[in-house]
Amino acid sequence: MASERSVPPTLSEVAEAAGVSRSAAARTLGGYGYVSPEVRERVLEAAERIGYRANALARSMSTGVTQTLGVIVADIANPFFGGVVRGISDASRARGFDTIVLSTHEDLDEEIAAVNVLIDKRVDGIVLASAALSSASAGHIEQARAHGVPVVLVDRAVPGLDLASVVIDNRAAAREAVERLLEAGHRRIGFVWGPPVAERPRRRRELIDEAARNLWTDGERLQGYLDALDDAGIAFDADLVTVGPKVEQHAQEEVERMLSLDEPPTALFCTENDAVTGALRALRSLRLRIGADVSLIGFDDSSWAAVMEPPLTMIEQPTLALGSKAADVLFAAIDGEQSATGLHTLQTRFIERASVLAPPER
Amino acid sequence: MASERSVPPTLSEVAEAAGVSRSAAARTLGGYGYVSPEVRERVLEAAERIGYRANALARSMSTGVTQTLGVIVADIANPFFGGVVRGISDASRARGFDTIVLSTHEDLDEEIAAVNVLIDKRVDGIVLASAALSSASAGHIEQARAHGVPVVLVDRAVPGLDLASVVIDNRAAAREAVERLLEAGHRRIGFVWGPPVAERPRRRRELIDEAARNLWTDGERLQGYLDALDDAGIAFDADLVTVGPKVEQHAQEEVERMLSLDEPPTALFCTENDAVTGALRALRSLRLRIGADVSLIGFDDSSWAAVMEPPLTMIEQPTLALGSKAADVLFAAIDGEQSATGLHTLQTRFIERASVLAPPER
Repeated sequence: MASERSVPPTLSEVAEAAGVSRSAAARTLGGYGYVSPEVRERVLEAAERIGYRANALARSMSTGVTQTLGVIVADIANPFFGGVVRGISDASRARGFDTIVLSTHEDLDEEIAAVNVLIDKRVDGIVLASAALSSASAGHIEQARAHGVPVVLVDRAVPGLDLASVVIDNRAAAREAVERLLEAGHRRIGFVWGPPVAERPRRRRELIDEAARNLWTDGERLQGYLDALDDAGIAFDADLVTVGPKVEQHAQEEVERMLSLDEPPTALFCTENDAVTGALRALRSLRLRIGADVSLIGFDDSSWAAVMEPPLTMIEQPTLALGSKAADVLFAAIDGEQSATGLHTLQTRFIERASVLAPPER
Repeated sequence: MASERSVPPTLSEVAEAAGVSRSAAARTLGGYGYVSPEVRERVLEAAERIGYRANALARSMSTGVTQTLGVIVADIANPFFGGVVRGISDASRARGFDTIVLSTHEDLDEEIAAVNVLIDKRVDGIVLASAALSSASAGHIEQARAHGVPVVLVDRAVPGLDLASVVIDNRAAAREAVERLLEAGHRRIGFVWGPPVAERPRRRRELIDEAARNLWTDGERLQGYLDALDDAGIAFDADLVTVGPKVEQHAQEEVERMLSLDEPPTALFCTENDAVTGALRALRSLRLRIGADVSLIGFDDSSWAAVMEPPLTMIEQPTLALGSKAADVLFAAIDGEQSATGLHTLQTRFIERASVLAPPER
């Protein structure tokens, strides 16, 4: 294809075509200094005629604004983050900003590299779904701010970091879901997924710490589960919380283990889509029916959940709104507004379908 | 947040900290001209000590390379494109390139604007899932190439345009799926979705033209459906092809219409996920069973399809591989290799599960 490339017209060629000086052409096209209306007209006409395109890089060099937001998410192939990124990019486009999207595979080192790339590209701000677990591992975020690049967190807060975070109320959403299961009469409720540790913590405090050591959202959802159990006076049972890698296959194995206990759970609360499909695989393999044998509520609604037999009761996250709100908060920070810190909490929606029934008679 | 910004160190401050001239610091950090090893060492040490970060924009201005790929897709929130974008960004990162992602909502005007934005940002190349239907509406693609920005198409070819396109063999995949339905004994097979026109074309040629006028992939999949029917000697029936907007709700209505015909289809071939879930909603509302009453094969496997009752037979697209292959072909074009044109076709995988049975006895 190299042979097909033609060189784009330069500023000098515009000046020549317009019959004006190079500096007059530069002032016109750069939008600075004085140019007579007549020269201005000739330059713009010539630029259009020969297909001159102002160089965004050159413009950025002189204005210091690149009109670009950086976006860093764990995995762009995850529909949740797909929705968030679309929300950010739609809101950005409306402001004339473009987005550079980087994926970190939930790895803090990749995230640090991604932040450095975006600082290097002089983006005007960054929306970040961070894998950092506390301010102690957030040096890269502080570094971006030290370079004058505001950062807004999305989906996850970083405890101890004084930064705007656009999130849902994970703890309240999880609590509500578990309360619905309790109202239906369930007392043994499995939690999928718990912390990704190899060995099952036996103590409640240890479990909470392990969950929080993984991801803020996971810790919050586990807390919501425990809140609901506490209110109902139900003692915590470590056997009803999954541990291990957060992949569908492992969710299946852990749910199969739970359902083979002497006192198996009669309901499951699943905190992500892969946890839901993993749990459903376990029910299939044990020939248990959704609802009639084991009730289920899952996080992140999907058009698939509505066509399951029976249709699944789910918690819907406002993915597009999370993205557009994060962009709005970031633009406020770029504009230098002080109000842009703290938690910005969006509401989830509880979508009741038919996967919650009373526990079966024993 | 404005009050928290600090000014990043400048080149002059590096020079001062290193005790060398500004030009020596510039030569060292810009990687051009001669610098003695001793000066070089002092500059690099000082740059690291005071946290100097080379400005990517400044570097781009002098080298003409931005190390950035542009990616334009119809909808980043669609899991198919999420996978493609991840494949592109992973392959790009491995080459030290970043990606700017823009979403067009399947609108040609937005696509033209997006291409102009990327030309303006001087990206080194563009991967594009184009809404252009022929070379007649591909002026913006020609314009990018005229500016020396190579373009590679992904997911869709643009007929009449001599450009590298990384696609799956849509026609063969659709044909295989319909052949499986024919082998199971089906003779009345519904096609979801057909062209998004308001009025149902009665003639076969007209239908094909309408489908092709929408999207290349849709036209190819319809052709594959017709190929299989032709081979089996089954006359085309316009009533068995959906028309109208490509949204889940409308797929449901069209499938309900089909299933209410005097001679309803005994099997459905669905060309996208929303077509599958729309068809499943229709089966639910008519109390028909998947497989036993109506067989079904869908495009784009999902972890949900495997946990349906019965599990759905699906065609899996290699989304990550489509993205990484498109990036590879684009890098070849950026490097000036001539081999980068033409169709690059990746294989789909037919995943047989349990949604195809013999047609019910009448």
